[in-house]
Amino acid sequence: MRATRFFISTLKEAPADAEIVSHKLMMRAGMIKRLGSGIYNYMPMGLRVIRKVENIVREEMNRAGAIEMLMPVVQPAELWQETGRWDKMGPELMRVKDRHGRDYIIQPTSEEAITDVVRSDIRSYRQLPVNFYHIQTKFRDERRPRFGLMRGREFTMKDAYSFDRDVDGLKKSYQIMFDAYTRIFQRFGLQFRAVAADNGAIGGSGSHEFHVIAETGEDALVYCPISDYAANMEAAEAVALSATRPGASAALTKTATPGKAKCEDVAAFLNIPLQSTVKSIVLAVDDEEKGEAGKQIWLLLLRGDHELNEVKANKIPGLANYRFATEAEIVEWFGTLPGYLGPINTKKPVHIVADRTVANMADFVCGANEADFHFTGANWGRDLPEPLVLDIRNVVDGDPSPDGKGVLAIQRGIEVGHVFQLGTRYSQDMKATFLDENGKPQLLQMGCYGIGVTRILGAAIEQNFDDKGIIWPTAIAPFEVVICPMGMDRSEAVKAETEKLYAAMLEAGIDVILDDRGERPGAMFADWELIGVPHRVVIGDRGLKEGKLEYVGRRDTEATNVPVAEMLAFVQSKLVAA
Amino acid sequence: MRATRFFISTLKEAPADAEIVSHKLMMRAGMIKRLGSGIYNYMPMGLRVIRKVENIVREEMNRAGAIEMLMPVVQPAELWQETGRWDKMGPELMRVKDRHGRDYIIQPTSEEAITDVVRSDIRSYRQLPVNFYHIQTKFRDERRPRFGLMRGREFTMKDAYSFDRDVDGLKKSYQIMFDAYTRIFQRFGLQFRAVAADNGAIGGSGSHEFHVIAETGEDALVYCPISDYAANMEAAEAVALSATRPGASAALTKTATPGKAKCEDVAAFLNIPLQSTVKSIVLAVDDEEKGEAGKQIWLLLLRGDHELNEVKANKIPGLANYRFATEAEIVEWFGTLPGYLGPINTKKPVHIVADRTVANMADFVCGANEADFHFTGANWGRDLPEPLVLDIRNVVDGDPSPDGKGVLAIQRGIEVGHVFQLGTRYSQDMKATFLDENGKPQLLQMGCYGIGVTRILGAAIEQNFDDKGIIWPTAIAPFEVVICPMGMDRSEAVKAETEKLYAAMLEAGIDVILDDRGERPGAMFADWELIGVPHRVVIGDRGLKEGKLEYVGRRDTEATNVPVAEMLAFVQSKLVAA
Repeated sequence: MRATRFFISTLKEAPADAEIVSHKLMMRAGMIKRLGSGIYNYMPMGLRVIRKVENIVREEMNRAGAIEMLMPVVQPAELWQETGRWDKMGPELMRVKDRHGRDYIIQPTSEEAITDVVRSDIRSYRQLPVNFYHIQTKFRDERRPRFGLMRGREFTMKDAYSFDRDVDGLKKSYQIMFDAYTRIFQRFGLQFRAVAADNGAIGGSGSHEFHVIAETGEDALVYCPISDYAANMEAAEAVALSATRPGASAALTKTATPGKAKCEDVAAFLNIPLQSTVKSIVLAVDDEEKGEAGKQIWLLLLRGDHELNEVKANKIPGLANYRFATEAEIVEWFGTLPGYLGPINTKKPVHIVADRTVANMADFVCGANEADFHFTGANWGRDLPEPLVLDIRNVVDGDPSPDGKGVLAIQRGIEVGHVFQLGTRYSQDMKATFLDENGKPQLLQMGCYGIGVTRILGAAIEQNFDDKGIIWPTAIAPFEVVICPMGMDRSEAVKAETEKLYAAMLEAGIDVILDDRGERPGAMFADWELIGVPHRVVIGDRGLKEGKLEYVGRRDTEATNVPVAEMLAFVQSKLVAA
Repeated sequence: MRATRFFISTLKEAPADAEIVSHKLMMRAGMIKRLGSGIYNYMPMGLRVIRKVENIVREEMNRAGAIEMLMPVVQPAELWQETGRWDKMGPELMRVKDRHGRDYIIQPTSEEAITDVVRSDIRSYRQLPVNFYHIQTKFRDERRPRFGLMRGREFTMKDAYSFDRDVDGLKKSYQIMFDAYTRIFQRFGLQFRAVAADNGAIGGSGSHEFHVIAETGEDALVYCPISDYAANMEAAEAVALSATRPGASAALTKTATPGKAKCEDVAAFLNIPLQSTVKSIVLAVDDEEKGEAGKQIWLLLLRGDHELNEVKANKIPGLANYRFATEAEIVEWFGTLPGYLGPINTKKPVHIVADRTVANMADFVCGANEADFHFTGANWGRDLPEPLVLDIRNVVDGDPSPDGKGVLAIQRGIEVGHVFQLGTRYSQDMKATFLDENGKPQLLQMGCYGIGVTRILGAAIEQNFDDKGIIWPTAIAPFEVVICPMGMDRSEAVKAETEKLYAAMLEAGIDVILDDRGERPGAMFADWELIGVPHRVVIGDRGLKEGKLEYVGRRDTEATNVPVAEMLAFVQSKLVAA
């Protein structure tokens, strides 16, 4: 490609609404252009990256035996009513009426559409397993679209849907997709991590997220550096920090802690480790039928330095729809304001849950349910009944890995893929069955597998940039190589060598752009560093006199001089290494 | 591709709502599957054809210097309000509100979106000309969706938009696109014709349609077999059928024609050629301000065997918003009911327009504005004033070509492409300007160029089918070649030769599918004839014993025996010829 035949439009400054680096750099590099809130034109430079991402995804999906099709963007509401999602999904689901007043949605995902296809086209166990995928435009009416392609409203996703005859089959199909995803992210050239995710009602280990590692990521990923263990923060298991509970050695003592409402302050005031204190979290569950009379108050106990994991709390039987208790409720049930709460001597009965670590503490400090007082020397069994013990906290860096191997570390990630064992969630509602060997109808076991194609661009940049601009991995760069001639219009030698090398690279199948715009070197280099092309060859008279061309890798701090005749092979070796 | 790794789902019967052959065959061949009214899933077999169409379009767009980008499906209403199309477009424009109550549309086309891009990104004449295209999902809320992909609601289009500094530049960009379209349709392997189209307000020869020739086409195409002249029926110029008007030879005579209200009946009754009669068409134009008092009645005169061209009528100054007159209006202005109307002795004054051919008639027969009577021997100038003479009729087969070369023929076509010189229609409303050499802002001259990607599939089938199914041109067939082994599971020889030929074809870059499903030969052949793969190789024990394989082209009536070792080259020669 010659730059004069392409469209390059870089900006010195990012628009004011661009908050994060990937959004800023994509706008400045002319990769995307805003059309409306959370809605972007993919400009020629950006579309090239999208196509490379799509092609890698497509090749690996095909290799894994998935079959490409294309489902519509606009889908009839009836299907979404069948599964209840028409009602359950809130305003994120974009709804539209046609000229006859019939309801449609603009697809945010296609479980219903694909299940509608298979319930009529899959009749026999002989047609199973099968996995359909498509790469399609989706829409999600985010309340507050932002961060460019990271949280836009219109976006491109690859979603695949597998159908199997039984759970064993589903698990096999799932593993095939998991492996395909691993290959895909490896081919992108991105640092990534697959982590076990919470999969709600389905249970088991039936869901993984694929994250691109980036310090700016909004998700915390938990992993063990010396084992396979990896989970997102919601799903990561926190073990008890001591395996057994020591015996009691102190007496229960009501101790004045005036104005010390936080564990940190209490520990400092009493001159004890924070790890000896217990934090009280008060939750309420309303009873829709019985009203006030049915309301239940729960007290969740965590070690002073730990945080509640709200997803884990939500899974405690009876706590599915909890909320945090109000101050009035706390006063009514505990007899005092927050800051001095504890499990001993509550005013009214509460349900008590102790985190695994708290359950193995002895001689701990907790609120006395009286303003400005804590208990010290509290002990389970002796001073209060044995609690219900559950894992309810977020893991922290250095926790033992739940697989018993080493300790956990935490890093930030951006979710770009998700694989999920759905089971019969959709096939049941939509009556999607097949006939087994005995001619008996059975529900299809379904899995779904998504990759946020356009989101990959944002995530790749969040992981790979510097103060000059984007640093694309070669596999998804808009161009692999840029040739920058200096003074092509003045020097016949530069012109001749430029055209020769450009032709040779095209011949060798290299995705190269020749910057024939006639820009000054400074402006030209700044553009390509901003755009993030990973390999640059500079051709100038001074070098040519010595028979040399200049190679600069996007991460290089210095140029490498390469003999003219060797440059093609030199670049090829860089591309292979990438 | 192995058939067992692909998804093949053929039907014996088409669904009842499939009216035309392409719709029926695409449904039966499992290429598309209905999700809702006018909304289809593109199944794997159909998607392969779509991708081949897209790739040819993309390659030729790139070759012509157009630059690919991607504009959103959901677009803000504001842009459509700027150009007035938000109000002008009726219910075909699908409108949707987001969660904040803001208006959006689901794009039926992208003139507004691209003009929004260029008005900020194109600043200087140095950036011109430029041509952007995208291949994207579109939606048009048809009142009565039908005919499968031919008149669906959701569809895929390629649209390109050129921007130039002046009309000369626009004409050059237009010609480049016209030539690219010609190459595209040639590469599809379809019989097609480019015809001049009416382009409304712009005027000139600034619009052409590309039609796939098919007897079932809904458009009539007019062309001259010995010259370049070609236009659609709306735009085709009809010349006077006699160059000059003969002198009057008969007297004007009021003649009884009892019950003969049609030209055909009058001619038969009077024993004269139909070509001697004149037909009266009465149109009315309302005056919104003056009401009844301002209403104008027009009488358009055509030779008895000719038909009114409504688009031409619409262009007559003063007739832009005409309607057909009511019976009451006809009685009021002519004093009689339809069937006996004419230009002589109307009851109230009417505007008279004579078609070019009528203007050169002498001694003609027309209604006498009295029930059961016609005038014979009517002559312009003598019996009534010279009329306003205009081209207002449809051409008919055998008319002289307006370029003076030979006579016109008419054939049916399906519109699949349209190129259009828009001029400043959008750049004016949206203030899309560039700075010229003098730093003065000038309006961009715009062209637009569409191809109905998914519609191509329907049109190709309407042109190429037989009673067994579809006959794809090789370039857009879902697979170029199918290998059908007979008894692959029983015969080691068949299996070995099949795998060998399959591997050799893949190696040679042939897009081949191996039917390894183990179907009976009859069912297998019927499937591939229905699906329309153009080249079939059959491998069986009987042939192998004689060292032969069977080749059958989709249009062949007999198989050709080809020596085993020569089959690859034989198929390659067929592919090259295709």
